[in-house]
Order: sequence, then structure tokens, then C-alpha cells
Amino acid sequence: MSNSYGTLFKISTFGESHGPAIGVIIDGCPAGLLIDETYIQSELDRRKPGQSKITTQRKEDDTFKILSGVFEGKSTGTPIAIVIENQDQRSKDYSHIAETFRPSHADYTYETKYGIRDYRGGGRSSARETAARVAAGAIAKLLLKEYSIDIHAYVSEVGEIKTPHYTTLDLSKTEDNIVRCPDSAIAEKMIELIDAVRLDRDTIGGTVTCVVKNTPVGLGEPVFDKLHAELGKAMLSINAVKGFEYGSGFEGTKLRGSQHNDEFYNEGGKIKTKTNFSGGIQGGISNGEDIYFNVAFKPVATIMQDQPSVDKHGNETTVSGKGRHDPCVVPRAVPIVEAMAALVLADFLLRAKTSKL
Amino acid sequence: MSNSYGTLFKISTFGESHGPAIGVIIDGCPAGLLIDETYIQSELDRRKPGQSKITTQRKEDDTFKILSGVFEGKSTGTPIAIVIENQDQRSKDYSHIAETFRPSHADYTYETKYGIRDYRGGGRSSARETAARVAAGAIAKLLLKEYSIDIHAYVSEVGEIKTPHYTTLDLSKTEDNIVRCPDSAIAEKMIELIDAVRLDRDTIGGTVTCVVKNTPVGLGEPVFDKLHAELGKAMLSINAVKGFEYGSGFEGTKLRGSQHNDEFYNEGGKIKTKTNFSGGIQGGISNGEDIYFNVAFKPVATIMQDQPSVDKHGNETTVSGKGRHDPCVVPRAVPIVEAMAALVLADFLLRAKTSKL
Amino acid sequence: MSNSYGTLFKISTFGESHGPAIGVIIDGCPAGLLIDETYIQSELDRRKPGQSKITTQRKEDDTFKILSGVFEGKSTGTPIAIVIENQDQRSKDYSHIAETFRPSHADYTYETKYGIRDYRGGGRSSARETAARVAAGAIAKLLLKEYSIDIHAYVSEVGEIKTPHYTTLDLSKTEDNIVRCPDSAIAEKMIELIDAVRLDRDTIGGTVTCVVKNTPVGLGEPVFDKLHAELGKAMLSINAVKGFEYGSGFEGTKLRGSQHNDEFYNEGGKIKTKTNFSGGIQGGISNGEDIYFNVAFKPVATIMQDQPSVDKHGNETTVSGKGRHDPCVVPRAVPIVEAMAALVLADFLLRAKTSKL
Amino acid sequence: MSNSYGTLFKISTFGESHGPAIGVIIDGCPAGLLIDETYIQSELDRRKPGQSKITTQRKEDDTFKILSGVFEGKSTGTPIAIVIENQDQRSKDYSHIAETFRPSHADYTYETKYGIRDYRGGGRSSARETAARVAAGAIAKLLLKEYSIDIHAYVSEVGEIKTPHYTTLDLSKTEDNIVRCPDSAIAEKMIELIDAVRLDRDTIGGTVTCVVKNTPVGLGEPVFDKLHAELGKAMLSINAVKGFEYGSGFEGTKLRGSQHNDEFYNEGGKIKTKTNFSGGIQGGISNGEDIYFNVAFKPVATIMQDQPSVDKHGNETTVSGKGRHDPCVVPRAVPIVEAMAALVLADFLLRAKTSKL
Repeated sequence: MSNSYGTLFKISTFGESHGPAIGVIIDGCPAGLLIDETYIQSELDRRKPGQSKITTQRKEDDTFKILSGVFEGKSTGTPIAIVIENQDQRSKDYSHIAETFRPSHADYTYETKYGIRDYRGGGRSSARETAARVAAGAIAKLLLKEYSIDIHAYVSEVGEIKTPHYTTLDLSKTEDNIVRCPDSAIAEKMIELIDAVRLDRDTIGGTVTCVVKNTPVGLGEPVFDKLHAELGKAMLSINAVKGFEYGSGFEGTKLRGSQHNDEFYNEGGKIKTKTNFSGGIQGGISNGEDIYFNVAFKPVATIMQDQPSVDKHGNETTVSGKGRHDPCVVPRAVPIVEAMAALVLADFLLRAKTSKL
Repeated sequence: MSNSYGTLFKISTFGESHGPAIGVIIDGCPAGLLIDETYIQSELDRRKPGQSKITTQRKEDDTFKILSGVFEGKSTGTPIAIVIENQDQRSKDYSHIAETFRPSHADYTYETKYGIRDYRGGGRSSARETAARVAAGAIAKLLLKEYSIDIHAYVSEVGEIKTPHYTTLDLSKTEDNIVRCPDSAIAEKMIELIDAVRLDRDTIGGTVTCVVKNTPVGLGEPVFDKLHAELGKAMLSINAVKGFEYGSGFEGTKLRGSQHNDEFYNEGGKIKTKTNFSGGIQGGISNGEDIYFNVAFKPVATIMQDQPSVDKHGNETTVSGKGRHDPCVVPRAVPIVEAMAALVLADFLLRAKTSKL
Repeated sequence: MSNSYGTLFKISTFGESHGPAIGVIIDGCPAGLLIDETYIQSELDRRKPGQSKITTQRKEDDTFKILSGVFEGKSTGTPIAIVIENQDQRSKDYSHIAETFRPSHADYTYETKYGIRDYRGGGRSSARETAARVAAGAIAKLLLKEYSIDIHAYVSEVGEIKTPHYTTLDLSKTEDNIVRCPDSAIAEKMIELIDAVRLDRDTIGGTVTCVVKNTPVGLGEPVFDKLHAELGKAMLSINAVKGFEYGSGFEGTKLRGSQHNDEFYNEGGKIKTKTNFSGGIQGGISNGEDIYFNVAFKPVATIMQDQPSVDKHGNETTVSGKGRHDPCVVPRAVPIVEAMAALVLADFLLRAKTSKL
Repeated sequence: MSNSYGTLFKISTFGESHGPAIGVIIDGCPAGLLIDETYIQSELDRRKPGQSKITTQRKEDDTFKILSGVFEGKSTGTPIAIVIENQDQRSKDYSHIAETFRPSHADYTYETKYGIRDYRGGGRSSARETAARVAAGAIAKLLLKEYSIDIHAYVSEVGEIKTPHYTTLDLSKTEDNIVRCPDSAIAEKMIELIDAVRLDRDTIGGTVTCVVKNTPVGLGEPVFDKLHAELGKAMLSINAVKGFEYGSGFEGTKLRGSQHNDEFYNEGGKIKTKTNFSGGIQGGISNGEDIYFNVAFKPVATIMQDQPSVDKHGNETTVSGKGRHDPCVVPRAVPIVEAMAALVLADFLLRAKTSKL
């Protein structure tokens, strides 16, 4: 059950980094949706490795094949199965970790939990699994477009370099640079930093901010499945994520209620709020304002340096960084964050259809 | 479905703030567990209103009754239903909001989503619902005790006043003061601040830190139901929570991989890690180290001041603070955070029983 | 998880026969539904013990209390919790089975599965649990009435006495007699038979037929959650049920395709079918014709006779029939079958709202 | 959600009859299970078309490929994805039904529910989907073998020709003939009947009986997920099934309690029951005796004759039987019934691991 996400718009992913293929089944996509395969591919291309000098040089085309659920270009209401074959696997890059646990990776916990582990490329714990999420998320985005909902993520922080509040940025410029930061001057600094870190054979963390515009009022469910609780879970389920905050977030805890409260007012017949410290969500339900949240990514665990560790027999040993890895994960994480946000919103859109008589 | 949480150790809560009762069904508690009712009451007492000068003066005894699932003092494997009757309701305190939306509350979103709303005391969106979680969480804690797992939450931040890292604190002192901060000097300052805010007829936010000790290796499920993803969802589902981070959290994003990585070593035959920036979780699965995380709570939305707002017809109006409310929610949030953590861990404990042949 | 049923219109029941109360939470009832409490009580009255000479003489008023989810007479979209207190328990009637397993009861299997068992009145395995289903089913029926869907069950068979096909009966007469058979002459024979069996201190089985009229086309989901598969599960989950068939059922297996096929024709612009051997369901989805199915109930296991058995230590012993029990369960099963059918249909009604763009 | 089955041993199938492939993801298979691919293929071969003169002459090799979840021959605890490519599709055989509804098929209900339908070969409603179930069921059987649980289904009835009670048959002989009936003389008559029906360009129904031996005590969950309720749902979800009964079934309703009751006795220290009218299940939980049940299959809807029908515009028309179809579905249904039974039992085996402390 751990490999499925969603209630009504539900995805189930499968696949290991170095197995024959990864993929996803989407169960619950409403019938009649135009499935634009070019769009799905363009989303996969935003995530794929080898895009630029600041991402891993590993090459995967990440071309997908739809096996079911689409007829004459439209969804039929039956499960949409998507398969992405694995290519350019250098499994032998991983033979050194068959018996050794890489620091800050899932090797030790998988080995202990299951008693067996496909160590090649991290197996199931590899971020390669997120390609399946991006494919499914692209279909969720197509559904959201029918409701004019727009999701926009970008890199807001790399190391200590950060952007100002999203409301001051031109989000349409995110894809203009390889780090996916809408402020070109800050982007330049981020790229320099990542490049320097890479040359140090090291890695660095960062933050992705996501903004959802034009959400209708009423998405999200009390009590446990609050909109932000599901967004939080969805984001925290992405590899390397260490934190989630929405609206005023951690900083907001320092404010007083009189400063933080989000007054309602009437703007031409439409109910709006003033500060949007609420982040577009009140009582777990969207209120029609912009939804915005931050997602913290730790520095990539694989570094091109020798590190002390232990093997499965408890012997102390050294792990050497091998393989081709990202010096900073956030540029490629942007489409993953968007995909997961789309999946959450698509699910709540369907759930909201049943809330009233 | 929104009112249930958990997969195998599953709770379903019900009830509105000013209805006859609130309660919870626990479905999936293993048979044979000693159900210590005194302990459950003591947990409810930690959450109940009216405990001290820095909490709401509303009085609710929060005595509970078990309706099913327990026979001769032990769980039978059938659903455990717990009911807590509502008392000391002053529903008329709320007649002013029957048609008006309080800022930063769920009034507007519920009204729009459902077309009807029990406005008394916030109805279902009231934090009163969390009493049911605490009762269920107490039973989860009794289960965890069978595995020696210990959960300890405390107030780590109120406004700008904060404690140092948990490893420097004596967590056994948390209950020694009314703000539930284990450092008595810092606690004193927090209490002063909350009291000053209260006299200003205002409110303030804060942070709760939670530490889980003695977790076995192997709790948590790849891929979507990672241990920290479920902890995040569980915490974000608590009223007023705006953010969640675990291990190195948001600060960790600024580190380099070489600083952040959590080396394994062998300590007397046991595999341990060095930095625990991982927060006890790797690849979504517990690694046996301390699990620790922070939960951000916004300032309470109800302030004893007049605030501009709109009514359900779109007319601009003023909302006056009425009723009896907390100036700062974090002291009473401590047992709620523990309860939700216990529910998450109990669920994964049961799930882990099926991972291997 | 075993104590919940439904996906979107979801119920969770709790309670043992001789505990303080039984009850149910309904999660997912759309907001705005008029909750007619008189109607709910009338449904409970159809199920309650002590109605007539052919049912158990045990007396339970089965009055219920709604604890949540209803405000000013309407559902609010939050969980509706209903509690029915237990009365007239004669727990001491059951002390003889604390250590002994009654034949064809759940005593042995519960004891072995859980290692502990509330033996009083069968505890959780008692058919008393179905009162909670009937209360929830009454609310499902109120929802179905908004869509003009009508559910009608009746006793079609007791022992060897049986009614002809439902299309030849006047179903409005079902409640005219105590056995709930719409043909008064056959009803008379059934009553005589049950009475004779009762005087023999024995019990007998029977069949309930259920007809659902005016279902829209499109309820039910391929592949696993076919409408008839869920109806089957729902019926088989009722105590004492041994079989389920719909449409042509077991008899239909003897026909040839050319006889059995259900031709479509156009009746005044509406697509209809001829034989309705399909039972109103094709490919697991309602086709707008009458849905009809049969539910087989075994003879009640508790008989007023001595029977050989074993105790929990494996010693051979004798179980004497004690307590007050039904000589035939089908008259009281009629409202339970209707309730479960209503729950299945209400769930699929909500699910169908999301099938198309 | 309709395309998944199971709680802990969970399968999700996908695919249409004439799309590129069908398949299944198994999520929850415990790690460390030997995945015998030869065995999986042998199970698929029992279901595949073209086996004998009494099955469809359509040819599909039904060779499968495992895409994930298996490493060095063993399950790893991650999802096992299996794909079976479609071959020998004659989609043009189906162009005549693009706009026309075949009697007793799912064409009309799918068209109405979804507004779009992959009509080729019945699309998703085709029994081809059951190949995915058989592949998954084979893995469930491998798991059950670890617990020595043995599942054995056979054809017990074709038209009016039927076998005596299973306890009188030698179940090891089921695969000795093409109709899969363990009594060779009766098998001969069944084959003759099916062949005669086929020459009449007609079809006929039948019944499959399934026996499960060596089940431990304690599988199945009260209240809704009773073992027989899940078996019933699983069987009713198979194409063409119209009824399910277990133990004494429909016939048992005619007995008196004193005849029907299933006395316990002690056989060499083991608790056994006498009549097994209980069918190995009491209170929804296995009691260690043989589980047995019957599954009714209607005559195949596609007959090689002209039949009146209507098209999607409501015009009356004629449907001609085309394509290659089975004259009787039960011989090929035997492995499907076994597969679904295995999936139900594997799921309950895992669930049972959490019932006690």
C-alpha cells in the first residue's frame, strides 16, 4: 500500500533504478480528458538527467509508453498505465555497495527491513522513481487545466542564496535558466555556487517554492486530509525532502495574532483576504487565494569523496563516491514538486464533487 | 474518509465543539493490550482547557467513556469506541458568527464547501476534536510501551524565545512548568511573554519539538508512506500547524553533503550514525537513532479585539473577539503532537509485521 | 479496517452485544440532506427483537442518539455518529459459554484469532451489530430517495416454502404480515412453519429477495468493485448469510446463451432490455432495469437443545441452548438486507459523480 | 480505485483487450519469497485461450515479463509489476460494435457511464483482464505454499450435468481432462454437451467449486471483511459470475438448526467440526476445516447467431456473433477462481499477523 498515492485520482508506481522499467498506473482519471502525449514528454524532459552542467551527466531519454486507459486520444475512465524503460544503466557502478551502506542513503534501512535489497542505483529508493510521478502528474495537470488551475514551482533557495517573496517575482521566467529560479541575477549566483560545489566534489541543498493559482474554494477535507496536510505528505514523500511549510510557515510563529490574521474583504463582490499568511488554505480547505508553500531539500547524499561507513556484517569500511550524480537536486526537483502538487489537487477536485447534495 | 487516519491502527473521529459529544473509534488495536484508563485520563488532562493562567479559562473535564472493544481490562481486537461528552458550552458566545466569517478561521471555507455549517465554537473545525486524538493516542502509546518506544514532545519556541538543540536538554523536566519547556529558565521567559500577549488581548505562535527514542529499525514504508511523510501529514493535520521539518530540516539545506552526511559506525556490534542529521529516518524508514522533528504553530486566530471582516452575504462587518481562548496554543499542543506521533508509529509497527516472509 | 464499509459513503461500526452501547459513524454523507429521525427509528423498529411471536422475545428499544454531523436537522458533511445503548442484557445467560464453544458460532474462531473474547451474547459477533447498519442504512436510504431510488426486500423462502418470481408479487404488501412476505397466503404457511419449528425448540433457514427500482444507469465500477460484487460482499457480511445470487443466479447457469441473453430494445426513446436475466447489472454497472438478488440465511445456530461440544481446553462437554433467540432470522433480516443494499448504492452514487469530465 | 483488490497483499490491474498490453502491480508481497517464473507461466497456460476444442480458438501465448520487485529470483518487498503483451488481436472483428450494444455485454453501461468506450474486444470489460489476476494469483499461491495452504478448483456443473459433493471426488484428477472435472465419466458428458452447444452456435453456463485445504484457524476479519464475504466479492468480480455460496449454501437454508449445526469434537488434541456445513468459516473466520464454495457462471453472452439490439443512437439493429469465443467459460475459469481465492487468502494471512499483541 505504500506505493500508491491518492484517494480518487490514485497513482501506483513501480520499478527500480536498474530494473527493466519503471512506471505508474493512474486509477480514477475521469473519462473524456484529452491526453496530450507531447505535454507528458515535455514534463519528463524537465526532470530527466543530463539537462545541463549543474545536473548529473547520466543520460536517460525517459520516453514513455501508454499501455492502457487511452482510446483515440482520450482517457476512457479505465486505468492509465505508463511505462518508462530504463536505459544507460551502469549497474557495475554499484557493485561496491552490494554489501556496504552509503551514508545518508536508504541502504541500511532497506536491508534491515526487508532482508534483501536491489542495491543497484539504490533500487526502489532511487529518485528515478519520481519520473513515474512526473508522468502521472502531467496527466493531473491536464485535468487541472480544465479548471484553469495553474501550478508553478521554482528554486527559491540554494545554500544561503535566496529569492524574495514570490509575489515580487515574475514566475513566467522560471524556465529561462538552468537552475529554474525566476530572478535571473539570483539564478546566476545559484548556478555559480552549485558549480563551485560540484568542483569541490561536494553537494548542497536548497528550497523549492510552489505557487498554485486559481484554485476554487472548497478543496481539502477536514480533519486529517487537510489540503496542506496532504500537500505536506506529498512533498515529504519526495526523495531528499526534510521540511514543508505553507503560507507564513515557520516564520509566522513569531508573529502576533493581530499581525498574522488574514482579514476578509469584499472586492467587487468576491470575498478576498488581505495578508494571505493563510497560504490560500483555511481549516484545511482552499479559500481561493494563492496557495504557496516551501519544500526543503537536503544536500545530495552521494558525494565524490571517500567516506567512512560499515558493511552489512558490521565491519568498518570506506565508501567511495561513484556513479554520476547531481551536485544539487533542486533544479530537477521543480517539476517533481509540481507533479505532486497536481496529484494532490486533482484528487481533492474529484473528492469535492461529493461534498454537497 | 477525511475523518479517519491510519492504515492498520486506524482512528476515526467525530464530533463538533458544541454538539452532544466528540469521540473516536480505534480499529485495529491488537488484542490483549492492557487498557489503562487512568493513563488515558492523564493524557486528556494534559490537553484539557483551564489548566493554567496561560491557557483558556474554559472548563471541560474531558472525562471519557469506553463503549466497546475492551473486556476485563484488555483490548479484544474489536473497535474501541471512546466518547467524551461536551460540557460548559456557551453556544450563545458564537451567535455573532452565525453569518460572519472570522479571520483566519475555517468559517468561510466550510460555508462555501458544504453550504451549511455548525458555527458554534467552530463546529467540526474546532481544536476540540483533538481531544479524541489524544484519547486514541494514549492507547497507541500503551501499545508502543510494549516495544519500549518513548515519545517526548516539548515547547521549543514561543515567539522569538527558543531552546537549544534537544540533545542538550533534560526532557524529563518538560512537565515541571505550565508552558511545557524542559529548560526552566527559558520556560519562565516564555510564560512571561505569553502572559504579556494575553494582557494585550493578543495571541502568539510557537514551535513544538518531538523526540522519539528507541524506535526499532524498519518502521516506515517506501515510497509515499515514508515515516517522515506520515509524521508530517499527521502534524499538519493538527489545528494551527503551518510547518513541519525533521532532522536537519530547513537549516540543513544550507549545508554541504560532506557536512550533512550521517556516517555509519559500529558501536559494540550495533550500527549507529554520527550526525543524526537524518533525524532517525533514512529512505523513509527508521534507522534506530532518535527521531526528532519540529512543528510550527501559528498565533491563535481568535484575538480579543475587533477585526474587520465580511458576512456570508458579502457585507463588510466587524468581528469582536468573544469566548475563552488560548493566547498561545503550544503548551496544550504538546500532548496532541505526542498523540499523533504515537498513532503514526503504532500504525507502522503493525505494518512492519508483514514486510518479510 | 474490518469494521468499516464503503469508499465515499463510509460507515464504521462498533460495539458488542453486552457492552454499554453499539453504534456507527457515517463519514461522507453529503451536506444538506434532511435527516429524518422518525424514519431512522422506524427502520430500527423493523429490525428490533420482540416484534412478534416468531422473533426472539428479547426486548431492546433500540432508541438511538445522534452525537454529531447534523445541525438544524440537516447533515453538515461531517461524520454522523449514532449511538444505541444496550438494554435488557442478561449477561449471566452467557456465563456457561465463557469457556465453551457453541456449535456453528464464532466462539472458537474468535478465541483462537484474538486469544481473548467477550463471550457475553456473542460479543462483537452478535447480530446486534446489525442495528448500527440499519441506522446508517436509513440515512443512505434518505439519500437514495433524493434520486428516487427505491429498495424493497422481502422474505421469499422459509425452509421449502417459497414465493414465485418477484415480478408476480405486490411488493407493497411486504409489511402487512409478521414474516414480511408479500404474498399473504404463502406468508401464512411460513409463519406456521416457523412456529412449529420454534415449538420443536429448533430453528430454520430462509431466503430474502431484494429488488431495487429506478437505479440510474452507471452505478458500479469495473473491475473488482462491480455493483453485484459489492452487493454480494455486503450481503455476505450479514450474520448467518451463506449465499448470494443476482439476476438469473445459479439457475441461469443451466440456460443456453440464446435463452439467457438480454436483448436491448427501444421503448419510447429509452433503452430497455427484455429478459432482465442480467438482474439490472451488466459488466458490473447498473443498466437502469430492476436490480434483484437473493440472499440465503442458514438456520439460526442457537437451538433450545443440548448439543455436544468442546471447551477451550479441548474437553468434550455439552452446550445447552439458553437466552432468547429467533427461530428463523429472515423476517428481521429484511431491513438489514435493505440497509446494506442502500449503503452499497449510496456509495456508488457518490463514486459515479467522478467518472466523467 | 475500482481496479485494485486487497488490503495488504494488494493488486492493481490495467489493460484493455486490444490495447498494447495488460498487466498487474502486486504491492505488499513480503520480501524473500522465491518467485518461480515457470510456475507463473504454467498458471497462465491453464487460463489461456486455444487450449482445446471446447475453448475459443483465439491464440494468445500470454507470456509475461516481470518489470520490478524481484531481485536475484526473490521478492524484495517492493511492487512486483507484471506485463503481458496482447497478440493475435483482430480488432476489425469488432468494428461492427463500435456503435452497437451487444446483448448481455457491458457495451451499453460503459458507454453511458463514461461517454467513451474502447469497443475492441470489449476493452476493459473483456475477460482478458483475468490473465493479470492469474499472474498475480500465482504469486499469492507461492506465498500460500509457504504455509502449506492448498487451493483446488474444478468444474462441478455444466448445464444440468453435475458432480457429487467434493468429499467424494479425487481432486488430483482435475487436470486430467479438458473440462477440468475430477470425475472422468462426468467430464466426458460435460465435454459432449459443450461440444453440442458449440455446434449449435450457442453457449452454456456452469459452476466451479473451489476447495481450500490446510488453512490455519484465524483468517478473516469481523465484521464487514468476513472471509466468505471477501471470497464472495472476489468471485463475483470475475466476468460472467452470477452467484456465490459457501458451505451448505442455498440448500442449507432448508435445513433445521439441529441438522445444520456443526458440532465440535476433539480429535487427538485437535478441535474439529462434524458436518462442515460451515464451509470452514465461522463468524467470518477460518476454523481450520476445508473451505469450500461454489461459483455460478452464466452462459457466454457472445453467441454465433444474429440477435436484435439497438445502437448508441437508439436505432434498432442486429448484432451478429463474430470473433472467436468460448462455448462455455467454466474450464478456463478454474484457474481464475483459484487465483482470486489465493489473493483473498494471502491478504488475510498478512492481516492476521497483526491481530494479537
